[in-house]
Amino acid sequence: MATQFDPPSGTRDLLAPEVERHERAFGVIRSVFTRYGFEPLQTPAFERLDVLLGKYGEDADKLVFKILRRGEHEASGEADLALRYDHTVPLARVAAAYGSRLPSPYKRYALGPVWRAERAGKDRYREFVQCDLDTLGSASPLADAEVLCAHHDAVAELGIGEFRVLLNSRRVLAGLLAAFGVPSDLGAGVLITLDKLDKLSPAAVTAELVQRGLDPGKAAELVDAMTVPDAVGRIRDALKQSEEGRAGLDEVDEVLTLVTPQFPPGRIAFTPRLVRGLSYYTGPIWEVVADGVTGSLGGGGRYDHLIEQLGGPDVPATGTSLGIDRILSLLPDGGAELPGRLDVAVTIMGEEFAARSFGFAAAARAAGLRASVYLGASGKLGRQLRWASDQGARWCLIYGHAEDEAGTVTVRDMRSGEQTAVPVGDIGAYLAQAAGSGQADDLR
Amino acid sequence: MATQFDPPSGTRDLLAPEVERHERAFGVIRSVFTRYGFEPLQTPAFERLDVLLGKYGEDADKLVFKILRRGEHEASGEADLALRYDHTVPLARVAAAYGSRLPSPYKRYALGPVWRAERAGKDRYREFVQCDLDTLGSASPLADAEVLCAHHDAVAELGIGEFRVLLNSRRVLAGLLAAFGVPSDLGAGVLITLDKLDKLSPAAVTAELVQRGLDPGKAAELVDAMTVPDAVGRIRDALKQSEEGRAGLDEVDEVLTLVTPQFPPGRIAFTPRLVRGLSYYTGPIWEVVADGVTGSLGGGGRYDHLIEQLGGPDVPATGTSLGIDRILSLLPDGGAELPGRLDVAVTIMGEEFAARSFGFAAAARAAGLRASVYLGASGKLGRQLRWASDQGARWCLIYGHAEDEAGTVTVRDMRSGEQTAVPVGDIGAYLAQAAGSGQADDLR
Repeated sequence: MATQFDPPSGTRDLLAPEVERHERAFGVIRSVFTRYGFEPLQTPAFERLDVLLGKYGEDADKLVFKILRRGEHEASGEADLALRYDHTVPLARVAAAYGSRLPSPYKRYALGPVWRAERAGKDRYREFVQCDLDTLGSASPLADAEVLCAHHDAVAELGIGEFRVLLNSRRVLAGLLAAFGVPSDLGAGVLITLDKLDKLSPAAVTAELVQRGLDPGKAAELVDAMTVPDAVGRIRDALKQSEEGRAGLDEVDEVLTLVTPQFPPGRIAFTPRLVRGLSYYTGPIWEVVADGVTGSLGGGGRYDHLIEQLGGPDVPATGTSLGIDRILSLLPDGGAELPGRLDVAVTIMGEEFAARSFGFAAAARAAGLRASVYLGASGKLGRQLRWASDQGARWCLIYGHAEDEAGTVTVRDMRSGEQTAVPVGDIGAYLAQAAGSGQADDLR
Repeated sequence: MATQFDPPSGTRDLLAPEVERHERAFGVIRSVFTRYGFEPLQTPAFERLDVLLGKYGEDADKLVFKILRRGEHEASGEADLALRYDHTVPLARVAAAYGSRLPSPYKRYALGPVWRAERAGKDRYREFVQCDLDTLGSASPLADAEVLCAHHDAVAELGIGEFRVLLNSRRVLAGLLAAFGVPSDLGAGVLITLDKLDKLSPAAVTAELVQRGLDPGKAAELVDAMTVPDAVGRIRDALKQSEEGRAGLDEVDEVLTLVTPQFPPGRIAFTPRLVRGLSYYTGPIWEVVADGVTGSLGGGGRYDHLIEQLGGPDVPATGTSLGIDRILSLLPDGGAELPGRLDVAVTIMGEEFAARSFGFAAAARAAGLRASVYLGASGKLGRQLRWASDQGARWCLIYGHAEDEAGTVTVRDMRSGEQTAVPVGDIGAYLAQAAGSGQADDLR
């Protein structure tokens, strides 16, 4: 039930375990992209309203969060800024602003939140992280293959288990419609329906095609061709009959030739039914999917004129977008493995020993360990040991009257309960060594 | 001059070198905070309007970016959400929402952008990173000392050079006003003026005090006490005369006792003139400053009732905020040291060798190196070598007809120009070894 203390609808508070899970994943992704020679770009959370609106049509415009003008203009009820809807419009703006001062080609990634006023729901957020990888300024299929491989490697290194890459081309789709004599006014709708062959039965897809106005015989022929055992072979034969179809096949095969040797066997497949919703793609398109996961783990393709349409220069472009939330949901929770908050918990056995104990925590940190003193009000050892245990501490340090007289600090091993008296001046070295051999233990 | 492609006023596009500089600094900060047992918290970019407004007074409310309602409500011109103004209001909301499900004490850091509609100007941004470190639920001076030490260590590890920590207490300020008989209605103004003793001459400060209505004799006495060679000793003596003054001195000395042994000599000093603008502080306050830098590198203090005032539970609290932009501006630019985009640049000597060359880049990445193929349209080696050099590549790989016949790939050392023929199957191992010994070279 929503309370007044919940974050706004469609947004989330991320506490430590989730932040850490995200950051680990983002670290992997950044490292893969860097290895491919992509560089980061960060743009502001908001853009001027005129930069954002009208770029993806009215439906998208409705999803834009607009920011009210300020000061004397606030009363006008007008907006002048808007939260970014994606990373592509800002990329187009940056390409226009920097022009030839950007490297050519410009290979960049953007990893950060975007905001869309969708109806919020389970796994449907209004603030979510989008991770885009794009190359501007190269028409080469090598550029397509490179972003696709980088996307693949990132997903593989994140360790989500088995997944597949579906590959197609916009020109294959055009060739397909031509080969089966689909009237051009039905083309877009027919493709959208065909793309459902991964979710619906052939019969259901055929029925929907007929409903869209396609001749029943043609509908059956088309669905048959895409679902027989050697569907891809049949489609290839059909495509070879038209120029557009041959060009599409060439595009697909060029990418396949480049990436297949880099992937495990069976990872990538030419998938003639793949459409990718957005109309701006102009060449190869792909999608990353995993069994048992509804929707994709991201995808992309070549979009040679979009940057210009978005207000940037007319450059060839190709890119891919990772479905971060879906990928994160597939990663192991790691909850049980969380390493605890502290390695070393330091008790406070009376105010007169506070400075000493504070210094022990500093010594532990200087040895590279996570350490903190007890900040509560209880002077009882039992209560403080419980705190140490709650923090997941490996060691607890105790320094009271007895230790003060002996010039030692008591180090309690929180796993075994064993206690060792360590000379005050040696505590940093002792903990560093214990942590070193402890790590060796864990690795065995 | 602003163009239509500039980011909105007061915001910035961060290209790769800046993103990398920021990320490096944030990595250091996170690592220091983690070593102290602080955990991350991430809240949404926007909050409900009623959560945000009215928390810091009218002037602050004017700086809030408000988000227009959507859909049918857009025409109303009303806002229902607003971009976060700081990390403290969201912290109060999270403390209220999670209550006892948070660790106690709750030690968290928040590192992310906040938005304020300030008049934009040089080094004055409307979107800027705020980095906050807070402990909720501990009234102990150990908690104050801990956040102060963590702030200190983060600044020290970032390597900005010499800096100092100024320490005071709200109760010292109250005691000071009492000791010098400042009328209570002039108190706040007098403190604000006294705080300018780091920028203005004693005479100018005295004049401002008189202007504020303070008796000229008292003004001179007060400024003299704070500027004589042994000012701190004189102020200590004066403070001892009132209960509030003694309590303030105790607070300062408790923190000094804890932190001074952890800092280099002279790093921290009791600074009676330090005020810290905000009125919500209730105990020790501090500021980190560096010579030659206007303003502070951040600061903080104890604010025991603020979380409740902001809508959260009534918990004691202490925290500190790092002035990220100012700290970043002090860090070495690193421009010249940037390692380049690629370690290995792979030329494309004709379409028939593209797949092979694409595979060499993959082999280099598998060896842990940053590698990419040439994505441009030129088939000329000279042009491609220039590209390799622009990328800062250490090695350039060439594979054309001659290499294809010999079963080798040519590895060009971009520093020496030396070329080596390496068997195709050995290229990954060769580059890994070259990079290994190259690193050793760099370390010598």
